[in-house]
Amino acid sequence: MPEPRDVRVALAGYGHVGKALHRIIEERADAIAEAHGIVLRLVAIARKGRYVTDADGLGLADARHWKHGNIFEMLGEVEADIFVEATPTDLETAQPALGHVRGALREGLHVVMANKGPFVVAAKEVQQRAAEAGRLVRGEATVGGCIPVLDTARQHFAGDPVQRIEGILNGTSNFILTRMAEEGSDLDQALREAQQLGYAEADPTADIDGHDAAAKVVILANQVLGQDIGLADVEVQGIRGVTRQAVELAKAHGMRIRLVAEADRNGLARVGPRLVPVGSPLDVAGALNAVRFTSDLAGQVTHIGAGAGGTETAAAVLVDIIDVARSSHDRPNDP
Amino acid sequence: MPEPRDVRVALAGYGHVGKALHRIIEERADAIAEAHGIVLRLVAIARKGRYVTDADGLGLADARHWKHGNIFEMLGEVEADIFVEATPTDLETAQPALGHVRGALREGLHVVMANKGPFVVAAKEVQQRAAEAGRLVRGEATVGGCIPVLDTARQHFAGDPVQRIEGILNGTSNFILTRMAEEGSDLDQALREAQQLGYAEADPTADIDGHDAAAKVVILANQVLGQDIGLADVEVQGIRGVTRQAVELAKAHGMRIRLVAEADRNGLARVGPRLVPVGSPLDVAGALNAVRFTSDLAGQVTHIGAGAGGTETAAAVLVDIIDVARSSHDRPNDP
Repeated sequence: MPEPRDVRVALAGYGHVGKALHRIIEERADAIAEAHGIVLRLVAIARKGRYVTDADGLGLADARHWKHGNIFEMLGEVEADIFVEATPTDLETAQPALGHVRGALREGLHVVMANKGPFVVAAKEVQQRAAEAGRLVRGEATVGGCIPVLDTARQHFAGDPVQRIEGILNGTSNFILTRMAEEGSDLDQALREAQQLGYAEADPTADIDGHDAAAKVVILANQVLGQDIGLADVEVQGIRGVTRQAVELAKAHGMRIRLVAEADRNGLARVGPRLVPVGSPLDVAGALNAVRFTSDLAGQVTHIGAGAGGTETAAAVLVDIIDVARSSHDRPNDP
Repeated sequence: MPEPRDVRVALAGYGHVGKALHRIIEERADAIAEAHGIVLRLVAIARKGRYVTDADGLGLADARHWKHGNIFEMLGEVEADIFVEATPTDLETAQPALGHVRGALREGLHVVMANKGPFVVAAKEVQQRAAEAGRLVRGEATVGGCIPVLDTARQHFAGDPVQRIEGILNGTSNFILTRMAEEGSDLDQALREAQQLGYAEADPTADIDGHDAAAKVVILANQVLGQDIGLADVEVQGIRGVTRQAVELAKAHGMRIRLVAEADRNGLARVGPRLVPVGSPLDVAGALNAVRFTSDLAGQVTHIGAGAGGTETAAAVLVDIIDVARSSHDRPNDP
């Protein structure tokens, strides 16, 4: 067990994920210190042009007295080790997250992202800046919520590289397809149900038309499969064209229609409705996500779990924070 | 990227797993060196009272000129960093593996096990000896083949400890239960089929009566869930009592009978036939394995994959070898 040491976290974004992370750090800091010798302190929070800092760590009650100012002013006011980017994702510009990430790396912080934007729009640039700064960039929370995806690819498949990934990476569309098969309903009915239950947004375009899943394909292709692509390189088909009849025909043949995201090392990067055998690991029900890794030695390994949710996403951020804290401490080439 | 450095592996056991590992190291050493700066060399192999060594690394063709002698003589003849224990498992005495592991730790080697015995019979002793020697002990291959299990619990759940594990950890019994449901056959018929296809041994006791799954429960309980138990502490019921009628009754209610291994942080440790909803992540077919982790923040995450096979098991050994090579290099408290 190494000596306990402080790991100071600065957070941008204080929605579901940011708040859940704050609560988790407050509740679990002692247990994490005891188990890993890492004393986590949340020393800064920025939200919508305001921020609050405390070098001793911000309790939940401290997230009230917001000052006007941006995250660069915030980072100038308090020292931190890890920057967590949890503002809302913009898949076109990646802003404001990309600017935040650049600034944090410039300030010498490691970066952990819940925001998908920077990995979708500027993955290579971010990795290069991180490498030049000798800092780590992680984004476990950007794909598959708290399912181990990027960390599994990095650690477990270190000597047997993942060759191909297929995934059910959008819980909303999977919920809709599941209900269509269960209830014999059509897409509009199932969508309304998903909206009533909070599984779908009022504007479901990103989910239904496959754009959210496509963003995750970009992340997997770039982070795991050695590609260097953007959203425009993904062949995307959503589920709008999936009829009740098609779902029933699939069912009659022992299959399900699922919105499958796929990428490999040969440039494959696509999202679309696919037939999946009933009972196969990718045939997950409801809002679950699934990720299937294919490698030469291990064959196929599938991970299933909750792909969304503030607490689950924050849990994935915590995975990265602890990994960065351990790795940056241990690595001799890391200042 | 750190400087390339040699990592010398000594192997005991040269059956399916040992041979697969040898082949993998021969085929992949260059790729691993390029990706991770770790130059793997297999410098010693012991099998059945004979051994062969070569400080420059043993090619596949070198595993022919065996000398008489035991692994202690072998370890005295060539320097190595990591000892891989892949002899056949004995769940009662853990020998000869336990003696090998003690000897390897005494010689200052890290230990990677495919053999379940030492983690089942003497987990605490092995961990203590490793801690005193400042060496690492890993056994990813002992549970769930190449499915990420122990490494996921250690890395991904570092800040959100696994509270409970349920698993389908014996592929043979799962194959039999799957065939009974698919074919309406009884256990004896399905068992004969499994034996013909090579999924079951001539003596299927360890699989059918739950002892193999129980050994894995012990490993999970001790390595992940903070218990300190042995085989005698596991409540074990096998699948011999599962009738065709029971399988059909379950099916009529949308359920399957599966041999489920369970353990938690409150002392639960048992194996037995359980009802699992059709289509739920634990409802895996054929010889697949599944492991479901439950934690406070992530909820339930399930991993599915091949639980057996020489190549798959050797792949899990390789995961540990690379992890040990990275961790032992990086850890300041590790000589």
